[in-house]
Amino acid sequence: MEKLYEGKAKIVYQTENPNHVIIYFKDEATAFNAQKKDIIEGKGILNNKISSIFFTLLNQAGVKTHFIKQISDREMLAYKTKIIPIEVVVRNLATGSIVKRLGIPEKTEFNPSLIEFYYKNDALGDPIICYEHVLVMKLATEEDVKTIKEMALKVNQILRDFLIKHDIILVDFKLEFGKLDDGTIVVADEISPDTCRFWDAKTGERMDKDRFRLNLGDLAKYYQEVLERIEK
Amino acid sequence: MEKLYEGKAKIVYQTENPNHVIIYFKDEATAFNAQKKDIIEGKGILNNKISSIFFTLLNQAGVKTHFIKQISDREMLAYKTKIIPIEVVVRNLATGSIVKRLGIPEKTEFNPSLIEFYYKNDALGDPIICYEHVLVMKLATEEDVKTIKEMALKVNQILRDFLIKHDIILVDFKLEFGKLDDGTIVVADEISPDTCRFWDAKTGERMDKDRFRLNLGDLAKYYQEVLERIEK
Ligand SMILES: Nc1ncnc2c1ncn2[C@@H]1O[C@H](COP(=O)(O)OP(=O)(O)O)[C@@H](O)[C@H]1O
Ligand SMILES: Nc1ncnc2c1ncn2[C@@H]1O[C@H](COP(=O)(O)OP(=O)(O)O)[C@@H](O)[C@H]1O
Ligand SMILES: [Mg+2]
Ligand SMILES: [Mg+2]
Repeated sequence: MEKLYEGKAKIVYQTENPNHVIIYFKDEATAFNAQKKDIIEGKGILNNKISSIFFTLLNQAGVKTHFIKQISDREMLAYKTKIIPIEVVVRNLATGSIVKRLGIPEKTEFNPSLIEFYYKNDALGDPIICYEHVLVMKLATEEDVKTIKEMALKVNQILRDFLIKHDIILVDFKLEFGKLDDGTIVVADEISPDTCRFWDAKTGERMDKDRFRLNLGDLAKYYQEVLERIEK
Repeated sequence: MEKLYEGKAKIVYQTENPNHVIIYFKDEATAFNAQKKDIIEGKGILNNKISSIFFTLLNQAGVKTHFIKQISDREMLAYKTKIIPIEVVVRNLATGSIVKRLGIPEKTEFNPSLIEFYYKNDALGDPIICYEHVLVMKLATEEDVKTIKEMALKVNQILRDFLIKHDIILVDFKLEFGKLDDGTIVVADEISPDTCRFWDAKTGERMDKDRFRLNLGDLAKYYQEVLERIEK
């Protein structure tokens, strides 16, 4: 199969159908703009399975995503998209970069949820951007931004409600959006403990990539725990 | 007189009239969040005079400012305000931090002019913020932001038209806004080569604080040249 793109965590392959890609999940973990790196055995399998569950949930709820089906332990079949180079972050509770950058107190509740945009550009370190920058840099149109924001909030509502039933707090997460050939915007990439912050609703324990960022260890164990809870 | 506040470039004194302050312009120059410092003799006088000319122009054009009058070489009389902790940057041409941060090509024209907000907080290094952060952090209300943006664009139009007649290109600038007791929002602080980027329309030479940031020298000479041109 033709490799279209190899990123930090996944590889995208072209399939025989020109509109379909296979997304292969690797075990590589990176953080802080890839300055910190490691391999965590089994992570790719867990992220593929968890992402597949979330995308299935979204598809069923009528949110358009790139996800077609899981086809193996490490692979999902998805619609090929032109990725919009914006990382859309939705925050329900303040933690991480927003606390450090703006001095907002840890665990401040955002109500309504806060949406932030980051320019998806590794060389520039994914800098934060505002609506005006999106337009100036022509990363998306006004209409696209409106759609993306509405979809992001809907994803947040669906995942949050689902996760809390499994005693997981959805603290924040990053989405990527892509465009199909006909212009339809869909949720693309992955939705996993690599791209979300999940806190155990009972113990407050981190069940996501912060275990790697903060050297807390046992990453795969906690990802496995997330999978087991949401599979129930 | 009671010193209300001493900042990096100015001192604010309370006058006998509780609604009035005196702003005293110092010769200190700082850049890069005060990591780079120097004293440039005469700078305070030049900035006070240049600011006074710009504020007079704005007052005459019906834009509300804190400026009452220049009262000495280094002092202006102004309305006392509660400063809104947002640095409002208006950009006509791309240069400086936006080029470095977002990879926008140098001298890209912004049309309409680009407005950016920075959280005025020295300890955090004046981080860039978006509309949503302004609301979440309660730095200003939705209505305030609307007013501030309209005023900033009006200031840009007035200064730009005025300066180009004196062969100076207004590249970008930073404004601060304050609230009077009755809630009126006024342009406060200073408008000077310390807070604007001025390029000579004929030679392209920098006539502003970039001479200090970039170690180009002759800062006071160029500030003097700005003053002489706009005094005509
Ligand atoms: N459906 C899709 N179509 C095309 N590209 C996609 C799709 N889903 C995700 N991608 C892109 O594939 C890459 C996934 O690999 P990843 O390792 O996450 O890359 P990166 O290091 O750029 O984050 C990302 O650049 C992502 O934007
Ligand atoms: N009319 C005003 N009323 C009250 N404060 C003002 C007024 N104009 C400016 N200021 C504030 O006074 C200070 C001016 O000093 P400056 O040296 O520029 O300070 P800083 O180092 O904080 O930028 C700034 O904090 C500015 O916000
Ligand atoms: Mg990625
Ligand atoms: Mg200042």
